[in-house]
Amino acid sequence: MPRYFLTVEYDGTPYVGWQRQDNGKSVQGVIEKAILDATGETVTLGGAGRTDSGVHGLGQVSHCDLSKPWRPYVLRNALNAHLQLAEERVSILEAAEVAETYDSRFSATKRHYLYRIINRPAPLAVEANRAWWVKKHLDHEAMHEAAQRLVGHHDFTTFRSAHCQAKNPERTMEFLDVKRHGEVIEIRASAQSFLHNQIRSFAGTLKLAGEGKWTPDDVTAALEARDRTRCGPVAPPWGLYFLKVDYRDGLDLRTPDLR
Amino acid sequence: MPRYFLTVEYDGTPYVGWQRQDNGKSVQGVIEKAILDATGETVTLGGAGRTDSGVHGLGQVSHCDLSKPWRPYVLRNALNAHLQLAEERVSILEAAEVAETYDSRFSATKRHYLYRIINRPAPLAVEANRAWWVKKHLDHEAMHEAAQRLVGHHDFTTFRSAHCQAKNPERTMEFLDVKRHGEVIEIRASAQSFLHNQIRSFAGTLKLAGEGKWTPDDVTAALEARDRTRCGPVAPPWGLYFLKVDYRDGLDLRTPDLR
Repeated sequence: MPRYFLTVEYDGTPYVGWQRQDNGKSVQGVIEKAILDATGETVTLGGAGRTDSGVHGLGQVSHCDLSKPWRPYVLRNALNAHLQLAEERVSILEAAEVAETYDSRFSATKRHYLYRIINRPAPLAVEANRAWWVKKHLDHEAMHEAAQRLVGHHDFTTFRSAHCQAKNPERTMEFLDVKRHGEVIEIRASAQSFLHNQIRSFAGTLKLAGEGKWTPDDVTAALEARDRTRCGPVAPPWGLYFLKVDYRDGLDLRTPDLR
Repeated sequence: MPRYFLTVEYDGTPYVGWQRQDNGKSVQGVIEKAILDATGETVTLGGAGRTDSGVHGLGQVSHCDLSKPWRPYVLRNALNAHLQLAEERVSILEAAEVAETYDSRFSATKRHYLYRIINRPAPLAVEANRAWWVKKHLDHEAMHEAAQRLVGHHDFTTFRSAHCQAKNPERTMEFLDVKRHGEVIEIRASAQSFLHNQIRSFAGTLKLAGEGKWTPDDVTAALEARDRTRCGPVAPPWGLYFLKVDYRDGLDLRTPDLR
């Protein structure tokens, strides 16, 4: 059976999260429904990362096997037609046929996330649900400096949800960068994999550094404590974007087909 | 009575437009309500420009007179508190006290708008209601070239709504620029004032130029015909943003107060 990778954009606001759940509409669920409507096939989608309710996807990657072969751009357009008909806030950016040895989750070599803060006195109107509004001025350079204490291989027990299911709390943070563009502060994070709530835990902690409440040494002390109660307040989901996934062997997910 | 200028951001999606109307909730109406709730005063807000339902504001300017004096940042914060309580998609970015000789509409020397197109095969999820989705590839350089035919002083009868109430269809387009940033095409327009639906009429016509259906000469011919039926299809409201207003004597609307 041919295997397809789907690159997915979604507004996380109206969904219970990426993963199918009993308590509401999930991104995975509405795409599976679109696949059923478009192809007549019932599939279970794999995904490169689980995102919580409210978290957005700009380049989530998902895969499924279909018994009937499709030209990738035709599959993409058919799924989008059904998603639009259902008025979902989900769009298939690209579809690509890949070898069956690729898995959207297990073949991933790196995941890239963005956390957006809008730092200004006035609440968000156009960007409501698209960024974390922080009223008080944040020193983004202090945030960046503190962030460097989290880069590298560490036990991130302090910075993961109590509900995190990963057996091993160790991860290697390859990149954690804080930049300001006007009133927007962007935190960019890259690693092979992340723990549950890890980036939102980082964002909430880095905010304390930006307010001058925590020094970089306080961040190191919290990290080394390996104690969830030492984490800063977890930042809200609506600032978080799942940006991109890299795959082994430089797998190129852009469709070579006609658009 | 002290006069206050308010710089306003709004998501136009849930409103009937800027102006108070009988058929639904307007941006003007919800701010007047917030002023009543915050100050106990009933005012009629002036505005620099009327925007249609779905059109967004990033820097609309409005004014009102209040009998009780307010420190501008306190007024801004009080209005925002009431707007947030009412879950409105409207935010007061700045409040400033100005001389009574200033009027948000009549003292304006220039208005700046942005029209956003997202030009890609996949529908919009995160940017739904925030840009016009155009599937077919657009040549932004051809659009820019065609746009230059609309710059300068002209009778814009072709490019205004049949419902436009302005007595004179002549305007001076000072700037009309088309640029691409990846999949986003931005049309920026500046003039002292605009006709009703003028920018959306421009955007729809420039799309024809981007598709290769119209040459710059076709745009000139349509302009010179002074005939509404010669306009391209009017672009949807959700791509349009009211960016900024300039005032005479370089009036600075930023509040000097503490935030």
